[in-house]
Amino acid sequence: MLVLEYEGARYHGFQKQAGVPTIQGELERAVKRLTGLTVRTVGASRTDAGAHALWQVASFHTAASLPASTWMKALNFYLPEDIVVKEAGEVDEAFHARRSASSREYHYRVWNRAAPSPFWRRYAYHFPYAMDLEAMREASASLIGTHDFSSFASVKGVKGGSAMRRLMEASLDRDQDVVRFRFVGNAFLPQQVRTMVGTLLDVGSGRTGASEMARLLQSRDRTQAGPTVPACGLCLVKVNY
Amino acid sequence: MLVLEYEGARYHGFQKQAGVPTIQGELERAVKRLTGLTVRTVGASRTDAGAHALWQVASFHTAASLPASTWMKALNFYLPEDIVVKEAGEVDEAFHARRSASSREYHYRVWNRAAPSPFWRRYAYHFPYAMDLEAMREASASLIGTHDFSSFASVKGVKGGSAMRRLMEASLDRDQDVVRFRFVGNAFLPQQVRTMVGTLLDVGSGRTGASEMARLLQSRDRTQAGPTVPACGLCLVKVNY
Repeated sequence: MLVLEYEGARYHGFQKQAGVPTIQGELERAVKRLTGLTVRTVGASRTDAGAHALWQVASFHTAASLPASTWMKALNFYLPEDIVVKEAGEVDEAFHARRSASSREYHYRVWNRAAPSPFWRRYAYHFPYAMDLEAMREASASLIGTHDFSSFASVKGVKGGSAMRRLMEASLDRDQDVVRFRFVGNAFLPQQVRTMVGTLLDVGSGRTGASEMARLLQSRDRTQAGPTVPACGLCLVKVNY
Repeated sequence: MLVLEYEGARYHGFQKQAGVPTIQGELERAVKRLTGLTVRTVGASRTDAGAHALWQVASFHTAASLPASTWMKALNFYLPEDIVVKEAGEVDEAFHARRSASSREYHYRVWNRAAPSPFWRRYAYHFPYAMDLEAMREASASLIGTHDFSSFASVKGVKGGSAMRRLMEASLDRDQDVVRFRFVGNAFLPQQVRTMVGTLLDVGSGRTGASEMARLLQSRDRTQAGPTVPACGLCLVKVNY
């Protein structure tokens, strides 16, 4: 089991796909270079293309036996500098990074002042308009619970299975020019967090009333929700087991 | 008068030099594109090549008359995204960004854990070894005051003039894995902050005794001090007038 941090800008998300750089692809290549063995890794959460992680979990089976600190140092030697292993450890055979996870926590950061920031431009979405935090808090409260989140799914729709997800927390706070949205859920649809934030920003800027959020959610119609904000502001910060 | 923020990685410092990208060069080019007029700007502090700024001040005379918010927005349109104007305003004819400044505050950040950070790699120096913060605090106290700082000058030596500078504050704190050094002085020699930090890290890791710092300073001999740490950790955070 590995705990990973990454800056996702150069990658098409965690999940391996042919022909494009992914976190999983880089990780499996590094394991191969270190051990000579091919592994299939499992990630706790498929992060969106361009999204970051401070605490992603990946697991795999291997015949290679190395001390945890060696796994960490050696993989960091082979990995590109925008992907870092910050913890490594052996886990029980039954552990599965995705299926064993009970919830995920994502943060979304918005840079909220007139001038952009040279430092936050990679990690926050620049939204220069005034925001009503209380209206956004009221609207976010109506998202909490177990719902069909089709309204906030990718415009491509929900691929197979259900759009039912359980959202346990949706909150936001401001620290100077950074507004941070915090979501904890059992799992999330692709782009769900970014579309919830885009809709909340519509509320914050007065384009949509806070009380509209419940109706929007119930409509299960993606065209009712707001825009999907850019992936640069999104970060997976914790996976709970 | 402009207040600038910049990520310095791509630049050879603030001061304009032929044939290499600089903050001042980019700024003067943007003013020229906006107003059609050539200006000579003055910066409060020549920052080292690769160093960042959260609060650099630049001033210039111009016949162009524009509202402050227009200066800000228009210059940000023409500037590359790693340089941002965050305030603009007219100042008295007598104002001179460098000569009118009474002191400068610089921070230096060290990333202090075994694994590197994909997020801090551009803004902090990765130092994975244990550090004795109390020893570094004791050593930094002996730097405070008005001294000849030749020991901490660039290895090329002090170019013309005196190496006498007044250091009012030298402190450090830790916030999780980030150790931040804070220096306030009337002015600094090129590379002075980075060489003071390199020497303090020698103290923190036990290579040099804390009580050695006073002797090192008095020697006025650059070979007695520690290494010059990389510019990526350095940031000009305030200029006081």
